Amino acid sequence: MSKDIKRVVLAYSGGLDTSVILKWLQDQYQCEVVTFTADIGQGEEVEPARAKALKMGIKPENIFIDDLREEFVRDFVFPMFRANALYEGEYLLGTSIARPLIAKRLIDIARKTKADAISHGATGKGNDQVRFELGAYALMPNVKVIAPWREWDLLSREKLLAYADKHKIPVDFKKRKGGAPYSMDANLLHISYEGGILEDPNFAPEENMWRLTVSPEKAPSKPQVVELSYVKGDIVAIDGVAMSPATVLETLNKIGGKHGIGRLDKVENRYVGMKSRGCYETPGGTIMLAGHRAIESITLDREVLALKDDLMPRYARMVYNGYWFAPERELLQVLIDASQQTVNGNVKLKLYKGTIMCVGRESATDSLFDMKISTFDDDGGAYNQADAGGFIKLNALRMRIAANAKAARKSAAKTAAKASQAAAAPVADKAPAKKAAAKSPAKRAAAKKAAA
Amino acid sequence: MSKDIKRVVLAYSGGLDTSVILKWLQDQYQCEVVTFTADIGQGEEVEPARAKALKMGIKPENIFIDDLREEFVRDFVFPMFRANALYEGEYLLGTSIARPLIAKRLIDIARKTKADAISHGATGKGNDQVRFELGAYALMPNVKVIAPWREWDLLSREKLLAYADKHKIPVDFKKRKGGAPYSMDANLLHISYEGGILEDPNFAPEENMWRLTVSPEKAPSKPQVVELSYVKGDIVAIDGVAMSPATVLETLNKIGGKHGIGRLDKVENRYVGMKSRGCYETPGGTIMLAGHRAIESITLDREVLALKDDLMPRYARMVYNGYWFAPERELLQVLIDASQQTVNGNVKLKLYKGTIMCVGRESATDSLFDMKISTFDDDGGAYNQADAGGFIKLNALRMRIAANAKAARKSAAKTAAKASQAAAAPVADKAPAKKAAAKSPAKRAAAKKAAA
Amino acid sequence: MSKDIKRVVLAYSGGLDTSVILKWLQDQYQCEVVTFTADIGQGEEVEPARAKALKMGIKPENIFIDDLREEFVRDFVFPMFRANALYEGEYLLGTSIARPLIAKRLIDIARKTKADAISHGATGKGNDQVRFELGAYALMPNVKVIAPWREWDLLSREKLLAYADKHKIPVDFKKRKGGAPYSMDANLLHISYEGGILEDPNFAPEENMWRLTVSPEKAPSKPQVVELSYVKGDIVAIDGVAMSPATVLETLNKIGGKHGIGRLDKVENRYVGMKSRGCYETPGGTIMLAGHRAIESITLDREVLALKDDLMPRYARMVYNGYWFAPERELLQVLIDASQQTVNGNVKLKLYKGTIMCVGRESATDSLFDMKISTFDDDGGAYNQADAGGFIKLNALRMRIAANAKAARKSAAKTAAKASQAAAAPVADKAPAKKAAAKSPAKRAAAKKAAA
Amino acid sequence: MSKDIKRVVLAYSGGLDTSVILKWLQDQYQCEVVTFTADIGQGEEVEPARAKALKMGIKPENIFIDDLREEFVRDFVFPMFRANALYEGEYLLGTSIARPLIAKRLIDIARKTKADAISHGATGKGNDQVRFELGAYALMPNVKVIAPWREWDLLSREKLLAYADKHKIPVDFKKRKGGAPYSMDANLLHISYEGGILEDPNFAPEENMWRLTVSPEKAPSKPQVVELSYVKGDIVAIDGVAMSPATVLETLNKIGGKHGIGRLDKVENRYVGMKSRGCYETPGGTIMLAGHRAIESITLDREVLALKDDLMPRYARMVYNGYWFAPERELLQVLIDASQQTVNGNVKLKLYKGTIMCVGRESATDSLFDMKISTFDDDGGAYNQADAGGFIKLNALRMRIAANAKAARKSAAKTAAKASQAAAAPVADKAPAKKAAAKSPAKRAAAKKAAA
Repeated sequence: MSKDIKRVVLAYSGGLDTSVILKWLQDQYQCEVVTFTADIGQGEEVEPARAKALKMGIKPENIFIDDLREEFVRDFVFPMFRANALYEGEYLLGTSIARPLIAKRLIDIARKTKADAISHGATGKGNDQVRFELGAYALMPNVKVIAPWREWDLLSREKLLAYADKHKIPVDFKKRKGGAPYSMDANLLHISYEGGILEDPNFAPEENMWRLTVSPEKAPSKPQVVELSYVKGDIVAIDGVAMSPATVLETLNKIGGKHGIGRLDKVENRYVGMKSRGCYETPGGTIMLAGHRAIESITLDREVLALKDDLMPRYARMVYNGYWFAPERELLQVLIDASQQTVNGNVKLKLYKGTIMCVGRESATDSLFDMKISTFDDDGGAYNQADAGGFIKLNALRMRIAANAKAARKSAAKTAAKASQAAAAPVADKAPAKKAAAKSPAKRAAAKKAAA
Repeated sequence: MSKDIKRVVLAYSGGLDTSVILKWLQDQYQCEVVTFTADIGQGEEVEPARAKALKMGIKPENIFIDDLREEFVRDFVFPMFRANALYEGEYLLGTSIARPLIAKRLIDIARKTKADAISHGATGKGNDQVRFELGAYALMPNVKVIAPWREWDLLSREKLLAYADKHKIPVDFKKRKGGAPYSMDANLLHISYEGGILEDPNFAPEENMWRLTVSPEKAPSKPQVVELSYVKGDIVAIDGVAMSPATVLETLNKIGGKHGIGRLDKVENRYVGMKSRGCYETPGGTIMLAGHRAIESITLDREVLALKDDLMPRYARMVYNGYWFAPERELLQVLIDASQQTVNGNVKLKLYKGTIMCVGRESATDSLFDMKISTFDDDGGAYNQADAGGFIKLNALRMRIAANAKAARKSAAKTAAKASQAAAAPVADKAPAKKAAAKSPAKRAAAKKAAA
Repeated sequence: MSKDIKRVVLAYSGGLDTSVILKWLQDQYQCEVVTFTADIGQGEEVEPARAKALKMGIKPENIFIDDLREEFVRDFVFPMFRANALYEGEYLLGTSIARPLIAKRLIDIARKTKADAISHGATGKGNDQVRFELGAYALMPNVKVIAPWREWDLLSREKLLAYADKHKIPVDFKKRKGGAPYSMDANLLHISYEGGILEDPNFAPEENMWRLTVSPEKAPSKPQVVELSYVKGDIVAIDGVAMSPATVLETLNKIGGKHGIGRLDKVENRYVGMKSRGCYETPGGTIMLAGHRAIESITLDREVLALKDDLMPRYARMVYNGYWFAPERELLQVLIDASQQTVNGNVKLKLYKGTIMCVGRESATDSLFDMKISTFDDDGGAYNQADAGGFIKLNALRMRIAANAKAARKSAAKTAAKASQAAAAPVADKAPAKKAAAKSPAKRAAAKKAAA
Repeated sequence: MSKDIKRVVLAYSGGLDTSVILKWLQDQYQCEVVTFTADIGQGEEVEPARAKALKMGIKPENIFIDDLREEFVRDFVFPMFRANALYEGEYLLGTSIARPLIAKRLIDIARKTKADAISHGATGKGNDQVRFELGAYALMPNVKVIAPWREWDLLSREKLLAYADKHKIPVDFKKRKGGAPYSMDANLLHISYEGGILEDPNFAPEENMWRLTVSPEKAPSKPQVVELSYVKGDIVAIDGVAMSPATVLETLNKIGGKHGIGRLDKVENRYVGMKSRGCYETPGGTIMLAGHRAIESITLDREVLALKDDLMPRYARMVYNGYWFAPERELLQVLIDASQQTVNGNVKLKLYKGTIMCVGRESATDSLFDMKISTFDDDGGAYNQADAGGFIKLNALRMRIAANAKAARKSAAKTAAKASQAAAAPVADKAPAKKAAAKSPAKRAAAKKAAA
């Protein structure tokens, strides 16, 4: 452990773990600690972190508390949703997408405070360490990273509590008794639950674990229709009311949560190599994905959609694995954003007890849906049905040629076999050997060799 | 229209449209007609088609009626679900997957009856004509295809009814009044609705359109947990009861339908080039997809899953576009099937009012979920957290090199700019020109040229 | 054949075939013909086409002759080379890339002359008809297209010559004697040869067929080193001399042709469904691909390169199949162009008797090659070799977990087998059945059923 | 450094570096060393390694010397060439493909000798450490790996020589003087050169570096035509002489080397994160790629080829990065091998001074080349040219709909603008506001809000 750190910016929540880290950094590295606490919609007050930091000796000018909710949704969540990103077919990447923003802000503050290191409270087994650190290295290549969970010896809860007690770091009663039976991560896009009792993938969590959504069972028995207005692939208004990105997501979280929408219980593959089970609540995000798919369905060209669909899993992996600030993610984003120029219009979704049903989509400016042509009724000549015959014939041609070639060979072989049988009947001769040679390069070669 | 057809096999439902086609083929082509009627789980009796065919003069030996339900699920539906196939992110391909089976059986019968042509009732605007015909051409490259909707002049309902009346083809009352306000296609995997009043994508259909599922609103208020047992990616038992492929799907349709699962209202892109709106009910299939994703989540390697996910949209397009019997689909299937060797185990899904939640997954033989390693608690050395540091560092290296190179150039440019400012102050010289040249090949070239 | 055409723009080379078409259009469609002749570097004079057109009664204002060489290279060839496009691994798309430009200009002229149709001399079996027409439809969706080779009855050479003679269209001696024993297409990027004697893929053409290149055998025995300067992925200077896009390509054609570079003899798959054999000479293009690969090798990030490589075959198919003006090609181009921002620098290539060897690459502004880090010698701490251990360990983790799980099961099975053997010895019991059930969901289900 | 190793298998070349490692392992780990020396066609005697090992105290039963040439080509090189694998567009993966075989054999011997560790001489900066270790971990998940170059302090040449002298390990004169000015790796597929003087990517190596090939300049002035016979994608005979896989490659190396074929000078991206420059000689492999492309060109379906081409760069990265024994590579191989069932036939290649030209390809059993259909002359009705019209029309449909929709909106907007201008002239009204609202969801939302 290199000790020559002068100043370190710590992603500080104000909770027990990062408070212990704060103390431990001061102790072990004898360095100045800068704390950074962000409101990314986790639903907890961030101001209390200031008092805690002050109490632990952090200088007032070294305490940074930011409301990043708008930036989070505008620059991270919305761009990602333009891609319809799902990791491993299902996960809406709620945790993954928040980490690069934290990394970015840590580096901003490191530059401002002339710090030479950053630190975070992510463990050595998870994806978050990777996301924080890849982001940080991309933005400040020579920054030092202190990941206490990979370095220290406080790996058990007992040791951590003992350290807290020793250094007079307050531990609330619940934490002391063992804390939640799983770990949580919350932001404006989602809450995730993992670890602890969830580590058995064959065990279903209690209903009371979930916080952002009611269960479908407890959701209202009356459906609600919500109208989403899109400009360039982003939602700009809900039910006709224009709102900012963060307000869009907050609003959809409330609506979705009320209707029991967006729960997921999943086993996924971590970038660091093992499988892990997570439970996720993404009420607003789940609605956003359905809405975005719907508005794209009438405004995107078929092959553009195919290209996006083919690239989506790759994009999702980039986000999941922490490559937000990598050039390949930025490049894919250029393509995705360019595809969204025409993604404008309105979508109506019916929400009911965990389900989402699209009940309308329209685009005054960019619809590619042509009722005249798609009708099965007479279309007044907009489409010439006879064209389909040629279309099918040429698309089938390669398969027809192949099937004919195969049949011709089969028939030739049959004829040859008959002829050879006939010939072979009276006297043994070399004909069959020649035939075999003609069919098999290896045998032919052998024959040539033998003949030489 | 080439008239030299001797014998044609018609995909005959016994309904009005194909009865008119039957008559029209006899009339126009003066050829012998062979009828083929299949039970693929559409939920209608197939035997009545025999009497109708006989009445229209078809010889008894030319009437083929088959129960293809097991073949349909075993050889078409199940292989497709191994791929987690979704067309354009949402559609479970219920119509698409049934067409190649019909094509295959049409060709089987054509060979058996020495027919030289096949005929079908698909319109000239849809995907089904492509699926039927690509399948037929792949299997019998020189077969003639008669697609009456692309040839005849009975394009309006009035003309069709007039033709039916003229030839004494019975028309039921409902049909005469205009029939359903949309067209339907049903099989064991789904019912689709399209056309007619559905042609406006901003219009939601009435509740009474749906037939396979109750609405989530009317579904039971008590959830049901269903356990699916997988062998090599296919469901072999439900709630511990072993059953055949078709019975699996029938059972899941009943369960899913009861719980309001599997409705979709979508705008999609047809292969023939226009957008079209379809409503789909796929209760069993929707459960199958969720279950398959869940069992794969603990039994498939991460990169195998990534490869499958990347190829899935392409596979889905092949199925949608009618390339089931094409070599590229068969080749992808080889990969998909090979990936399923380890997809064995059990999944528990909770069904409630249109929602599906995985509440358990296990594989006694092939689980890759290692609780010991994935735990955030002390794992007794199964995983060395320090490894993560090196992992991140090397994954970040290319981004760090790039950022450092960029910074070095920026700083060099600043230094050079200062130096050149200093130098430029007293006398004008050529330094800036040289600097520019060094940075820009074009300018350098220009400079060289100028200097020459 | 709909005869209600008022004015048609014909892609007119001045040669026999398009002269016959010109006459035939006047005859059959009784419409005004506008001729368009382009210099795209095919190496033939275009002005003579004016006199010929006039002679056939075309009004002077209806004759368009354009030099499109710069536009061709700047807006078509260069963008395509940014993608390193190769169709089916080898073909540099010389014909494919010229067609959309012709289509675009045909449509420009159709708008200017208020024509309602275009016409071209491409056959009904080739790719070029598709490329012309897809381009035209994309740019002017309701344009009528007249493709005489798909319509008329002049399919044999004899009929064509008879028609020419009848209408006093001059036929040169060589043409009358049968013309070239293959057909050719030439532009600034390449010459292609196909058809005729080349239709046997097991036959090699005579040396005298090739026109743009000498044979490697006849190339100079002294190598030449050429330096290419790149700005944003395009060549802006050769050997330090700045030049326009068309001049770049002309220059490289001369140099490459002299050194016997760029011949290809290939069987490829046409979009219309059959295989076809083509011989190609692309001297400048072959050098351009090698140079571009080399400059990208030091200026592109690894994952950006991987993304480009993965998408390249798809991009090449879009170009080959005629989708230049399709939104999916334009979208991919956005990504490709964005990737080229850093592709700046110089490359030195050694050319010798058909071979190209890169002998140097540098980028003063964008090199990502860091000699300090890549050295195997001591690098002064720029890279920490110990990091590699963790990197490998975590990348191996999923495979290690899988192998351990497999081994554990094998060992458990062995133990169980022994135990069961031991147990089975004295009395027959149900233990083996239970074990089997535990391993196989199907059997377990059967067991449950049996037990019920 | 954990010292509890009992027995380690060392990949031992007999050279200075691995001899030092052998000694160092004995010293540092106090463990028994097992040596493994393989002939994979590197062109050096392997038997001398036995005497050296014995001299350093290795027990005779712990010395393993194997001729792996046939296994190398049959099970590694040939399968890879079925994929047409090229890393980053150019590199034939000569080093990459040899490493997994060594890893496999190391593990075989570890099992046989009950060793608990393996060791190799690859540095901590290169790809080879990754390839060795990923292979080893995949095959024996708990094996310990000792990578001395990542552990020891002998990082400079001086220290290494001092250690050798101290332990009486013989150092030949050349090595003592600094050794080759680059490092080499040789096997039956290629020789690579990197490091040292090659680290400057703008510096071309001396001619005398190359060993497997003469320069094109010195190659014979008479071309040679070679005929390759393929069975299921593998070469089974050359010029009609059947031979084993290793003999095929040896033979092609000789022929290719004589004709100056297969040199490459490239900058590539290492898996560990930096760019590196390598020079490669792959004479036989270069011929094999050209031949395989040619035989596939007549025997593979177009879409199968497209699928293979799309997946090739990914496959190549798997091999380059060391994932030979990973399930994703094995899965792709299943697809690739399945595609090769029809890749049978003969190819003729003309070799001359570094160039390869295909001069013939045929497949008696699997050709899909149909001369009758591909001809531009009259084909007797095998292909109906009129089909192309429908084919193009439907392929263009989505673009035509889009262009028409765009035009209609443009025209409507113009009309509306005129109307609104007219209306606006006399009195101010709300019309423009409404129009804007209709076009922009955001504005419409704002309008609604304002109205509320």
